[in-house]
Amino acid sequence: MTIEITGIEGFPLVKEGDDLSSIIERALNDNDISLEDDDILVVAETVVSKAEGNYVKVDDVEVQPDAVTMSKISGKDAKECQIILDESDEIVRCQKGLIITQTHHGFVCANSGIDNSNCEAGYVTPLPVNPDKSARIIKKYLDESFDCEVGVIISDTHGRAWRIGAIGVAVGISGMHPCTDLRGSVDLYGNTLRSTVEATADELASAASLVMGQSDEGICVTLIRGYDLSEIRCAVDESSITEIIRDKSSDAFR
Amino acid sequence: MTIEITGIEGFPLVKEGDDLSSIIERALNDNDISLEDDDILVVAETVVSKAEGNYVKVDDVEVQPDAVTMSKISGKDAKECQIILDESDEIVRCQKGLIITQTHHGFVCANSGIDNSNCEAGYVTPLPVNPDKSARIIKKYLDESFDCEVGVIISDTHGRAWRIGAIGVAVGISGMHPCTDLRGSVDLYGNTLRSTVEATADELASAASLVMGQSDEGICVTLIRGYDLSEIRCAVDESSITEIIRDKSSDAFR
Repeated sequence: MTIEITGIEGFPLVKEGDDLSSIIERALNDNDISLEDDDILVVAETVVSKAEGNYVKVDDVEVQPDAVTMSKISGKDAKECQIILDESDEIVRCQKGLIITQTHHGFVCANSGIDNSNCEAGYVTPLPVNPDKSARIIKKYLDESFDCEVGVIISDTHGRAWRIGAIGVAVGISGMHPCTDLRGSVDLYGNTLRSTVEATADELASAASLVMGQSDEGICVTLIRGYDLSEIRCAVDESSITEIIRDKSSDAFR
Repeated sequence: MTIEITGIEGFPLVKEGDDLSSIIERALNDNDISLEDDDILVVAETVVSKAEGNYVKVDDVEVQPDAVTMSKISGKDAKECQIILDESDEIVRCQKGLIITQTHHGFVCANSGIDNSNCEAGYVTPLPVNPDKSARIIKKYLDESFDCEVGVIISDTHGRAWRIGAIGVAVGISGMHPCTDLRGSVDLYGNTLRSTVEATADELASAASLVMGQSDEGICVTLIRGYDLSEIRCAVDESSITEIIRDKSSDAFR
């Protein structure tokens, strides 16, 4: 069993109003790739936000008192703090050099997932407003173009509480559930597994992140081919990334 | 750029005293795979612990008062709690259904990383005592056998504080540093990235986890080919997975 992870090269710079789905189709064609059933497209959230016009011009931000306070605590720029606040439902941690929030989507991550890289100077891109919807639009388009059933993941990179460094994670999904439930399956010795749920979409996003790079390489769409989706495949609008978010009531770290 | 992730099939059941390196060599040969420079071998920690005889027979465990208390709080079996305690330096959380510890290695994870799947009934396997050393032994052997320089990762699966499901992570490493430091590099728009460290070894372990499965498939060694290791490559004993562990003083969640 071999899984192939291929970065789609020659992707153009994306700007507000662009039809991202057709840009992806064209880039695939330029790379001589024809999509097949069970192919998985991983698309970086930044290009999704850009195409959707989800920019914030930092100079235009009006700073409110809470952001001033957060700026004093964290040492981060007050306008940046205001944008982080605007994108959050809850401040999970605010301390020197670190702001962790829960975003409107429910993700617990640094800086509300706001990205100031791969963006024009003076602008930042928050996460897409509805990344599941963004994934669905791309999936519907590609399924029709290539006459197949693909999985689509919108990805970001998140840090971790106890380990250094960021890893790729899924923030939007279509055509597949984010987790594979192995509970009840049997191991090599015939023992029934009691509690193993695999965060497949996050592992796929991490695999894609290896080829995406995070600097000047410009790989923002990755094709994963060879992963057996049969356990988690579903219709275009039957899944949501919210399935992977731990409910606050079962969260031991808030 | 394409990365290939291949599960090594036909791996035998590993038992105490087995020479894991030579078993991996034989399995690679049986799969018609000759290793090349920059190939990365990801080896599941369970087979490492088994080969090293790092088993615990659950019936033989003597339960101490702390484990009885932990059992009452968590609802987990008292002998299991004792094994978790024996493998930990610190209890990070103990509540209904959940025990998070810091292991002797420094990993913060559920149940001290103790595995009761893919193990003979009545036994559990703690993490390898020194997974970096285990990785070094395998790397030295394979480098010599195949006349090349590979990277070796010993992998486990960890849950996450705010997301459901487990993902592959690295618990031992040789021939490569665990993180890629992108600070100071330049993005598509010429902005200098201020703070991006990528947890490459964890992303590689997650990619491998996609083919390893976690139940009856028996894939415990995975080959990753095509990833450019140049940024993080190092000599056999110049790296340690401890590089990826967040220092307690910078840990906002303890």
